[in-house]
Amino acid sequence: MNILINNGIILPMNASNEEQPYFKGYVGIEGERIAFVSSDPEKAKAFYLSHDNCLRMDASDKIVMPGLINTHTHVAMALLRGISDDVPLMEWLEQHIWPIEGKMGYQEVYDGARLGILEMLMGGTTTFVDMYPYEEAVAEAAESAGIRALVSPCPMDFRMEHFENDWRQVQKRFSDSRLVKMWMGPHAIYTLSGEHLQRSISLSKELGVGSHVHLAETQTEQNNCMAQHGMSPTEYLEKEGLFSTKTLAAHCVVMSDHDIEILARNGVSVAHNPQSNMKLASGIAPIKKMLDAGVNVSIGTDGASSNNDLDMWEEMRTASLLQKVSTLDPCAIPAYTALKMATVNGAKAIGREGELGVLAEGAFADILLVDIEKPHLYPHTNLISELVYSTHASDVDTVIVNGRIVVKERNCLSMNAQEVCATAQKHIDTLMSK
Amino acid sequence: MNILINNGIILPMNASNEEQPYFKGYVGIEGERIAFVSSDPEKAKAFYLSHDNCLRMDASDKIVMPGLINTHTHVAMALLRGISDDVPLMEWLEQHIWPIEGKMGYQEVYDGARLGILEMLMGGTTTFVDMYPYEEAVAEAAESAGIRALVSPCPMDFRMEHFENDWRQVQKRFSDSRLVKMWMGPHAIYTLSGEHLQRSISLSKELGVGSHVHLAETQTEQNNCMAQHGMSPTEYLEKEGLFSTKTLAAHCVVMSDHDIEILARNGVSVAHNPQSNMKLASGIAPIKKMLDAGVNVSIGTDGASSNNDLDMWEEMRTASLLQKVSTLDPCAIPAYTALKMATVNGAKAIGREGELGVLAEGAFADILLVDIEKPHLYPHTNLISELVYSTHASDVDTVIVNGRIVVKERNCLSMNAQEVCATAQKHIDTLMSK
Repeated sequence: MNILINNGIILPMNASNEEQPYFKGYVGIEGERIAFVSSDPEKAKAFYLSHDNCLRMDASDKIVMPGLINTHTHVAMALLRGISDDVPLMEWLEQHIWPIEGKMGYQEVYDGARLGILEMLMGGTTTFVDMYPYEEAVAEAAESAGIRALVSPCPMDFRMEHFENDWRQVQKRFSDSRLVKMWMGPHAIYTLSGEHLQRSISLSKELGVGSHVHLAETQTEQNNCMAQHGMSPTEYLEKEGLFSTKTLAAHCVVMSDHDIEILARNGVSVAHNPQSNMKLASGIAPIKKMLDAGVNVSIGTDGASSNNDLDMWEEMRTASLLQKVSTLDPCAIPAYTALKMATVNGAKAIGREGELGVLAEGAFADILLVDIEKPHLYPHTNLISELVYSTHASDVDTVIVNGRIVVKERNCLSMNAQEVCATAQKHIDTLMSK
Repeated sequence: MNILINNGIILPMNASNEEQPYFKGYVGIEGERIAFVSSDPEKAKAFYLSHDNCLRMDASDKIVMPGLINTHTHVAMALLRGISDDVPLMEWLEQHIWPIEGKMGYQEVYDGARLGILEMLMGGTTTFVDMYPYEEAVAEAAESAGIRALVSPCPMDFRMEHFENDWRQVQKRFSDSRLVKMWMGPHAIYTLSGEHLQRSISLSKELGVGSHVHLAETQTEQNNCMAQHGMSPTEYLEKEGLFSTKTLAAHCVVMSDHDIEILARNGVSVAHNPQSNMKLASGIAPIKKMLDAGVNVSIGTDGASSNNDLDMWEEMRTASLLQKVSTLDPCAIPAYTALKMATVNGAKAIGREGELGVLAEGAFADILLVDIEKPHLYPHTNLISELVYSTHASDVDTVIVNGRIVVKERNCLSMNAQEVCATAQKHIDTLMSK
């Protein structure tokens, strides 16, 4: 299908660090890609007339912008939202999360992922990066819901066999997918022996895919790594050669200047998860320092059980506010930088620079229409500030992924919301009564 | 009018620190007060049958809870949302905020307040505490919109005359109001000479009203006070006798243990403004310490130009998450405590304990219906966690203030939203082009 987005406020975004202007204009979509972005009504008219079967979508009073890219989540954990909060990390994992996760199979992961994907689509996330057992189920849920996913089956010491099976299944079913891609997901240094880490690295190289890893999330991880290897987790992973694969590292909370220099030198991208790091009391990642050092920093929500939502707007806002207060610098992470982290930098983090995270000719048509006719967004003086500091997920009116309209006027067209919610409820009730 | 709220999930809240259970039940409203709260359908039926002109409001799948109390804002600053962000504090004030504020008169404050009030009502705030020039305009806006307001005309050195005029005007027009009450608003130690502070204190005592003050917001305030008076702002205000009036102190970021002890000993309540403190890079208020010391801590949004919204749900969430990460304790400010800060503690802060912030027989009927049939709120396992960690302002379905339905199914009945937004836009366009 072809779509003409008509008369919107276009915020194209691009790789430059300079704030790009928004303007009244038009976006043409041809199949799965953007055909043009322009302020010229004649160009829009010509596009409309020259394309059969072209839907004209009115975008007056709406911001037209790239879809948001959530670079670190465990989407199926939406199923576990609220089952445990406000307790110490190990109690949270050992007494609440792991026992329930141990009972989750393919179907629970699939339906949990559907719930998380529904929430993400309704809030304007068009791509997510995932790591969890049964990534085949996550890939299946993403494909059927029409959201873009980078799934990373995760090697962990106690489930290497399961991991390889998961990998083969996803590869078999989704190698031709337009939406699902695969990376390796070496879980973390504390769940993966040197031998298994090497296996993950060599598989990444053999298959030509990147690595998605948890890194330096807590002081405990840092302390244990120092005790075991005499170096920081970042130093250890560099020594082991992980960064010779394209790497996306989630969290990066406990980081020395040397660690940051290592990330910058190796072109490692970071997925910053401020709300999860706050809720689990892990600490505050030195994001401003990383950006200043030239590290590509993107934004993730982490799983919904440590957040407790998958809302990239709040995450952008928190990323900005938390750096300001932790560096005592009100200029840290200005609004445009936060917006770039959630779009352009996210695309770069997963090797899709120029293809995703921007509105540009030739890029994939992952596009949001944000309704700014809301009291909490008035008056309109600076739309970038508005998007980052005041916009809510519920202000997203329409969502297009890969040229397909998946949310229209706040209704999800690709999923039955009521059924997705009810199914999730049934699963968690059963899991908790077992 | 009488209202029977039927078949909801009732979250009554009360002054206890123990988490109170929610239950399926009913709330009866007689005029402006709550007549009963019960799980007994027979009681509901009897209430309905014994009251003429009784509206039955279906609350299935909705949480029925007390309205939120925003204990520190400058509501008319909604007009200035987004005009300046991401700049140092003094540049923000001197080059952006003050020049525009200097051009604002009664009408601009009135229409700015209407915009902020609209946003607050739509998001479930039923009471706010304000401080600004032209509090008469704020009071008028609150009264006509049907929201409860505690306005505090503010003595400042350069406008004592204006303050006294403002005070008399509000008193004259709103002394019989069911919604508007008045306090003294001694602005801050750095805008008020000792003499004028004394005048504010004696007026408070003479009129039998409390004091709403900015306190210890920044390190600069602390340093200057140490240089000038050889003591902290809190020590200085205690010495000057302010705390002999019922006091609500906003911010309280830079606080020693001794300062906290002073607040506790004098029964001073705190309005915590986490997002504003983050955005302006003021610092992190030691809220957990204050609560542990027995200080009554409530929550405020501050003005929309340093936040940039008036969303108490985000503020609750941020209050909890920010304490967890700053104390490195995931148990700090659990969900129920945050909820209590935004309701019960808010009521106590303004001397309305038991009357506001709770659902209880005899309390004023300030009530929210929160729609939990949303993907981001599924599955339902712990509704307290859901309210604090996942609920958005846009999940508020219905709002009752003083027994009057002001928001119904996400429509504001007491204001014309479109007109309020358009008027605000016109003002800011004019102010910025002057």
